Amino acid sequence: MNHQFRILLLSCLGIISLTLINVTSMVAQNPSQDDAFMIKKIYETALTESSTYQWLFDLSEKVGGRLTGSPGSYKGIDYTASELSKLNVDTVWKQPCIVPRWERRGPEVVRISTIDTSITLRSTTLGNSNGSIVAGEIIEVFSVEDLEKMDTSLIKGKIVFYNRPMDPRHVNVFRAYGGAVGQRVRGPAVASRMGAVGCIVRSMTTNIDTFPHTGVTRFGDEAHIPAMAIATVDAELLSAELKKGPVTAYMQNHSRLLPDTMSYNVVAEIKGSVYPDSIIVVGGHLDSWDLGGGAHDDGSGCVQSMAVIEILQKIGYQPRHTLRSVMFMNEENGLGGGRAYADSSNARGEFHMAALESDSGGFTPRGFRTDAHPDVLKDKFKKMYEWLPLMQPYGIDMNVGGSGADISPLKSQKGLLIGLSVDSQRYFDFHHTSADRITAVNKRELELGAAAMTALIYLIDTHGL
Amino acid sequence: MNHQFRILLLSCLGIISLTLINVTSMVAQNPSQDDAFMIKKIYETALTESSTYQWLFDLSEKVGGRLTGSPGSYKGIDYTASELSKLNVDTVWKQPCIVPRWERRGPEVVRISTIDTSITLRSTTLGNSNGSIVAGEIIEVFSVEDLEKMDTSLIKGKIVFYNRPMDPRHVNVFRAYGGAVGQRVRGPAVASRMGAVGCIVRSMTTNIDTFPHTGVTRFGDEAHIPAMAIATVDAELLSAELKKGPVTAYMQNHSRLLPDTMSYNVVAEIKGSVYPDSIIVVGGHLDSWDLGGGAHDDGSGCVQSMAVIEILQKIGYQPRHTLRSVMFMNEENGLGGGRAYADSSNARGEFHMAALESDSGGFTPRGFRTDAHPDVLKDKFKKMYEWLPLMQPYGIDMNVGGSGADISPLKSQKGLLIGLSVDSQRYFDFHHTSADRITAVNKRELELGAAAMTALIYLIDTHGL
Repeated sequence: MNHQFRILLLSCLGIISLTLINVTSMVAQNPSQDDAFMIKKIYETALTESSTYQWLFDLSEKVGGRLTGSPGSYKGIDYTASELSKLNVDTVWKQPCIVPRWERRGPEVVRISTIDTSITLRSTTLGNSNGSIVAGEIIEVFSVEDLEKMDTSLIKGKIVFYNRPMDPRHVNVFRAYGGAVGQRVRGPAVASRMGAVGCIVRSMTTNIDTFPHTGVTRFGDEAHIPAMAIATVDAELLSAELKKGPVTAYMQNHSRLLPDTMSYNVVAEIKGSVYPDSIIVVGGHLDSWDLGGGAHDDGSGCVQSMAVIEILQKIGYQPRHTLRSVMFMNEENGLGGGRAYADSSNARGEFHMAALESDSGGFTPRGFRTDAHPDVLKDKFKKMYEWLPLMQPYGIDMNVGGSGADISPLKSQKGLLIGLSVDSQRYFDFHHTSADRITAVNKRELELGAAAMTALIYLIDTHGL
Repeated sequence: MNHQFRILLLSCLGIISLTLINVTSMVAQNPSQDDAFMIKKIYETALTESSTYQWLFDLSEKVGGRLTGSPGSYKGIDYTASELSKLNVDTVWKQPCIVPRWERRGPEVVRISTIDTSITLRSTTLGNSNGSIVAGEIIEVFSVEDLEKMDTSLIKGKIVFYNRPMDPRHVNVFRAYGGAVGQRVRGPAVASRMGAVGCIVRSMTTNIDTFPHTGVTRFGDEAHIPAMAIATVDAELLSAELKKGPVTAYMQNHSRLLPDTMSYNVVAEIKGSVYPDSIIVVGGHLDSWDLGGGAHDDGSGCVQSMAVIEILQKIGYQPRHTLRSVMFMNEENGLGGGRAYADSSNARGEFHMAALESDSGGFTPRGFRTDAHPDVLKDKFKKMYEWLPLMQPYGIDMNVGGSGADISPLKSQKGLLIGLSVDSQRYFDFHHTSADRITAVNKRELELGAAAMTALIYLIDTHGL
């Protein structure tokens, strides 16, 4: 049901009062019939003529995993730069950025032994973890805070096992992730500080399944003890064994941190026909973890950002503001690309009127969330909110609260920062695992995200912010 | 972000005017803090303690396909009756209904021959189609209307191939389905009337893939020519061959219609503690096509309807109105169960205050759509719409327009008919195919549907309609 029809229907039914109708009409006055027509064309083009899915197939299956500084990441840079160059843009360039370099090296083993058995668990080394071979008795805790309350004498020489599940009661899975991911990011460093020789972390998913999930962990001055994640079903098994009696573990991996290295963001630009000095950027992050193909995280955001340019071109739309599609490097373990982009932009005195990032997976879009410098958030969001009636027929809502990691360093330029929100219930089935492949992405869902992003960029470019 | 917070935030930002705030507050007055608390409990229980997913596993994988009148359908009746009996309900009964009986019998073959090759296509017989072996030249058309405009001399003795794709430009996939499914439902009968000896139909999906989709076709007095669907990739291939030159087909299947037989709806009832004569029904259809396990279509709706009772019991809620959970038989090819339920109810002079059906797949819920007798639609929907602020934080919207096939015969009782709307982008990846198995369903998405349904039933029961 389209918005106008729904308002009309609810009004006819006497369900919403004339007062509300008037406000809605007022809000709806600004967007024109032309906008509705253009948005329809954008959606139809995205669903029938876009390269989005083919690009994602190539990026996740032919290029493959794109860990920052790895050969795959440079292949990804070349691939996206080459594909963007085939579009009718003014410039495509590789923007240098200094990035950390972590190398996974096997064999990766977590083997546990009880009084009567020995079992190899499904494990993966966490990003930044230094390789070594350790053994020790396992001590199970359920949060960093719980560990910090314990006496270090209980921890010394042990292997700490963080077994906090993501809380399934949260409808918003990112809230569940946020509530548990501390054990992965900070947990190993805290365990090391308290004398642990190794750290095992329950994977980040509400599922009970067999996929170990990697992801970043951060050490400071502490000894870089080996830190590895185990699949949730293995975490359940280990916890059950610990209830029966003592369990020891043998951990092995040979990963290592190498010196920082040079990598690149890929930037494609169409110079604005009316306001060349006012920039709109749309992007995703090109780097991924190495276990899968980085299809949802964040190949989807990259190809959708490429599609914004392709779709606008296919409908014959010429941007009035300068439009950039950016493939950011190194979101996963450092944000080197996002920082380099903002630093370079600030140094050149640029102004980004708006920045839009897609980094929640290639699922059905649900809306946009926004953030900005407090000086401008109110006015900018108010302007964007006027377009809601144009996007609601496509199931798109608009909210305040957050945007995207790579674009967040642009906040000081006082433009509007926007994140694409999607139906993320399945995100942690794949996130940072070997299952994050093209098979996990539905073509239409991916295309609908590209369509929603293109429609918003069209509105921003046409009406300004 | 929750609704109150969002309104507050938007208000603080001066983005929505006080006028709008007042209206929204007015609307939000009726629902209480208690309701918000209960709905939170319902969601948490659905996401942590519900049997929904386990029931669906059993129904789609242990019971399996449940074609009306087949052994699987009777196993499904016994299984759901048995599981419902384990809940603390007053009565569980099997309600008789007369249903058609169609039996698929192989081998099923669609083989095409061109001047230089012969290829067996991936095919499945359409429900109600009578088996036989035919051969003839293929004539391709793109709609029933196109065929009807043609001279019968061109059709006589031929095999008609309907190759209309579902239009991918529709964001709402059911609209795309509705625009193309006529070729499957009416196409074979029209072809037969015009002298065709067989009918091949392109499968109902926007994907280009290898799954043939079955589904009902309807004949009147015409000869029941064999009618079979082919996978979309096979339809593309056949179309390409037809552009090169004449193509003949050999079609074979041995399916048959048998005499009508007796089957059953399964009904579980909790007598209302305050209004025993006012009934609320929640249901899905237990029958499915035979190719898969009927997981999305409509095992999901069945187990969600069972979960409504289970969740209410787990939170200690005693229904004030009589609450029935109904597994309807024979939605796919006759609606015998839905009609029998309404006929029996009317004969006993019952009143259904509300009926809620889930039959769009076990995906993330997006909202509720409603229908009713014109005399009452306005008032009933207005009442329900007042609860929107309680459901919006869970991503649930409310609209007018449609409900569910099985509950539609209850319309004359002048209660509110409601359908669960979900994110259906992936529905036609599985619909009526061998892929409609438990593996196609995400546990959390299924549970969120059960939660949304339970929350609405709670609100209807507590506040009336």
